[in-house]
Amino acid sequence: MKLALRAGERSRGKCSPNPFVGAVIENGGKIVGEGNTQPYGQDHAEIVAIKDAGGKCKGATLYVSMEPCCIFGKTPPCTEAIIKAGIRRVVVGILDPNPLVSGKGIKALREAGIEVEHGLFAEEITEQMEYYICYVQRKRPFVIWKSALSLDGKYCASDGSSKWISNPASRKFVHKTRSQVEVVLAGIRSVAHDDAMLNARGLRSAKQPLRVILDPTLDISLSSKLVASAEEFPAMIMYIQAEESKIQGLQDKGLQLKQISGYKDELDLKAVMDLLYEMKLYSVLLETGNRLSEAFWKAKLVDKCMIFYGNMILGGDKGVLKRYDRHNIDRAVPLERIKVKKLQDNVLVTGYPQL
Amino acid sequence: MKLALRAGERSRGKCSPNPFVGAVIENGGKIVGEGNTQPYGQDHAEIVAIKDAGGKCKGATLYVSMEPCCIFGKTPPCTEAIIKAGIRRVVVGILDPNPLVSGKGIKALREAGIEVEHGLFAEEITEQMEYYICYVQRKRPFVIWKSALSLDGKYCASDGSSKWISNPASRKFVHKTRSQVEVVLAGIRSVAHDDAMLNARGLRSAKQPLRVILDPTLDISLSSKLVASAEEFPAMIMYIQAEESKIQGLQDKGLQLKQISGYKDELDLKAVMDLLYEMKLYSVLLETGNRLSEAFWKAKLVDKCMIFYGNMILGGDKGVLKRYDRHNIDRAVPLERIKVKKLQDNVLVTGYPQL
Repeated sequence: MKLALRAGERSRGKCSPNPFVGAVIENGGKIVGEGNTQPYGQDHAEIVAIKDAGGKCKGATLYVSMEPCCIFGKTPPCTEAIIKAGIRRVVVGILDPNPLVSGKGIKALREAGIEVEHGLFAEEITEQMEYYICYVQRKRPFVIWKSALSLDGKYCASDGSSKWISNPASRKFVHKTRSQVEVVLAGIRSVAHDDAMLNARGLRSAKQPLRVILDPTLDISLSSKLVASAEEFPAMIMYIQAEESKIQGLQDKGLQLKQISGYKDELDLKAVMDLLYEMKLYSVLLETGNRLSEAFWKAKLVDKCMIFYGNMILGGDKGVLKRYDRHNIDRAVPLERIKVKKLQDNVLVTGYPQL
Repeated sequence: MKLALRAGERSRGKCSPNPFVGAVIENGGKIVGEGNTQPYGQDHAEIVAIKDAGGKCKGATLYVSMEPCCIFGKTPPCTEAIIKAGIRRVVVGILDPNPLVSGKGIKALREAGIEVEHGLFAEEITEQMEYYICYVQRKRPFVIWKSALSLDGKYCASDGSSKWISNPASRKFVHKTRSQVEVVLAGIRSVAHDDAMLNARGLRSAKQPLRVILDPTLDISLSSKLVASAEEFPAMIMYIQAEESKIQGLQDKGLQLKQISGYKDELDLKAVMDLLYEMKLYSVLLETGNRLSEAFWKAKLVDKCMIFYGNMILGGDKGVLKRYDRHNIDRAVPLERIKVKKLQDNVLVTGYPQL
């Protein structure tokens, strides 16, 4: 099952909105086939593994991190292929959280006389599949809030300078994360301030995320790096109101433009999430500045935190999330499943806020 | 040598202002003696190890984490005892940073025909002996700044509440640290706010630090826990100006009182350090609130940081070190030798600010 998890991980960022499932086929003590979910509309992991095993599926055991589907979606049901291949036993990680399938895949296999177990590595797999689970259960993408802070919790010095709070190892980690999500989202302020590209750089054959900029009155500069790179790396701007000529100018440069409801100069973040859900994009990395970060926290749209601490003390009044004021310690937002990673002299803390 | 380091560690917090040296004697492939520095005025590690080995020192090798002394201090020179015991070879960790001894101990041994090496585990030992090295080289105690923050760098919620940012594992770690330093120092504000005891609790046979409170106008309440516990756990109050009756009242309760120079309502921190140096106390744990912490940072009196992050987001404007403003990222204080420890769902980051 560990091999199946690892195989599934190879599909992260590449198969939205499908779960990144991994499958391994074992026959007579030998691994005879392996597969992971292919891009949306192509083969699921089980099918890849069965094809990989060729004729060696008779009497075999299939390990698969999530319950095989039993419905016709973009592809035929995996349960049928498993039955047809002559597999004798199926070990499932977790049930499909999609209510259309949940439990029914296992039932179909059992009815065909296949021995089925499930629940192996359930905790690890539930965490691995968090994008998909959020997407099907909450009908919105999974949102990761990334922040780069000094050890005293400042996102920049008091004069606004912040290059570089994070070291190269942290920045590399961010680029890798960008390649593993569907969407990187930022506000116009920070894009303008840093002339940020927000693509995944410095990696071998990185899958690029869709760059989404929240820009209420379409203030983005036509000469920004983000606009200039729109032909090469996909980018979308969400706005409330703008002049037709500016919209046209940006579309001509290859950007997608989407009008979204808003109040005064703030986009309705719920509408932003709805649109991304409709676009079948199930994970978002927030690289928002402080103001927009506060708005996402206030809207309870943070599922996971990824906080990079640079090895420095900055002082000053640029404390992160200042206006997201919890007032009393009893109202603090607790984070669960805290993990720590040292990135040379930086520290990455991840956790899941209980909003 | 690793055994010698470990032996020395047993003296941490118990032998100020002497270094916590460890010594191991090996003869014929066997450990025949071991020792660590005894309280000030009693035996050094080498003497303890020689006594422990009894008659088995002839032709033996002595491993000692710091160069043996060659002068009469409170005790006779260790070099003489080593020579007299018939030890054939001495492996030294680091040279004594005290200029009265440095290199001379090794010279004395060599002149007596003993084979001497040095530099083994030098980096680890230099860090282990940081209190002593600071004390002899900078003529002041080594200062550790402790802070307990939310993940977003707030020391309390906006209403002032902070119980509990840290979890029990972090608090236990703090109590252990208190037992390993000579002085725990706090300002009157935080003592009054929390009615803090500042002693080492919840440990088996903990050595208690001297509790030092900076209280410019002697505002401490006679009914505070700190005052009430002064007979049991040593406590000292440093003040600028106060009424004689209050001074007398506190002395009657068993507290030591020291008048220190100051400016307006702030004690001169340099004078505080000078006094602790004179008292032969070589390590201080700062458990200061935000204002006094800022003063120590401004005075460049922080040698090591110990930051505990609770697993929560607090928001609000209580960012730590707000008024210690570095203005620009180029003026940020870098921390070296960052280490990370997970304490259940809390994270402890330690490092050495380059002030």
